[in-house]
Amino acid sequence: MNSRLYTFLGGLQGDWSITSSRTLAGEPLPAASRVQILQGNPGALPPATAWVLSGTTSNERYVTRPEKIVLVSRQANLGRPAAACAALIPIRKSPAWWNLSQDERRAIFEERSHHIAIGLKYLPNVARRLHHCRDLAEPQPFDFVTLFDFAPSDAAAFDEMLVELRSTEEWKYVDREIDIRLLRDTL
Amino acid sequence: MNSRLYTFLGGLQGDWSITSSRTLAGEPLPAASRVQILQGNPGALPPATAWVLSGTTSNERYVTRPEKIVLVSRQANLGRPAAACAALIPIRKSPAWWNLSQDERRAIFEERSHHIAIGLKYLPNVARRLHHCRDLAEPQPFDFVTLFDFAPSDAAAFDEMLVELRSTEEWKYVDREIDIRLLRDTL
Repeated sequence: MNSRLYTFLGGLQGDWSITSSRTLAGEPLPAASRVQILQGNPGALPPATAWVLSGTTSNERYVTRPEKIVLVSRQANLGRPAAACAALIPIRKSPAWWNLSQDERRAIFEERSHHIAIGLKYLPNVARRLHHCRDLAEPQPFDFVTLFDFAPSDAAAFDEMLVELRSTEEWKYVDREIDIRLLRDTL
Repeated sequence: MNSRLYTFLGGLQGDWSITSSRTLAGEPLPAASRVQILQGNPGALPPATAWVLSGTTSNERYVTRPEKIVLVSRQANLGRPAAACAALIPIRKSPAWWNLSQDERRAIFEERSHHIAIGLKYLPNVARRLHHCRDLAEPQPFDFVTLFDFAPSDAAAFDEMLVELRSTEEWKYVDREIDIRLLRDTL
């Protein structure tokens, strides 16, 4: 199994309870109350699984070396003890996006939408892992799934970051997006 | 099933006979005499399948708009009646390549290795389809599989193109490569 593969199961099981699910574009997902996050393939699905999202972490597609140096120096890993809040945000981009050339996508992504620069302002408080879904053998309902986590005290800042990102030119190419908020079970 | 997924089966069956198989870097593949090319997943494997390679076509990762315009104006699709010769070339790149940032990979790929410019010289005589393997859920032995086809009269030019590409800085990052030549069955 590809060790970079992660699977997200929405249903009645898992360590994370869904506190809200908001469809910003495109079709909603079926209702679920909890999310299970697995590394690898799930095998047999638990009863009452409402949805399954899979994706792999991969090499960065847009980041330059100077940007990478700053990102690496500031970013945190998921799973910090204080990070009891999470957001699972699957998005799909339009065919128009995928038909752009690499330089056009980069120009929209960073020179005009400042995706990296906006994200940087919220590091290390917000941790993030990006999963690519579009090139899996099984067709996926989204192109990307991003999992974020943060302390409850950073929830307002996280919302502010999303408002900034969603107002950009890049987001005009997002044709499906669901914002699922999660709270970790107290251990 | 992802309609961009292709599977290549090496064994005793298929429309293409293997005329040579040369390992240029890394481990060889098990011996096979024929190749079957399928769109999608193979399902049950034919008896005596020696190897299975899968990959999806995807958006371009390095091409700029001016390059894309020239490529699109010149390139041909696979499967022309005269194209009785093919080459199936799976390659893997090293972790050092994948750890580079996007701008560093682009600089090596085109500004310093002229990958696109070299390929352009052989269009439309050589047709090509690139398949990405690295981000599939099932781990793959290669990062890319490229399928080329051309008329027998263009075989020498095709070899020349490979000599040029393999002498580049980009190819220093190729840590596994097998060059499998195919001849189509006469119908």
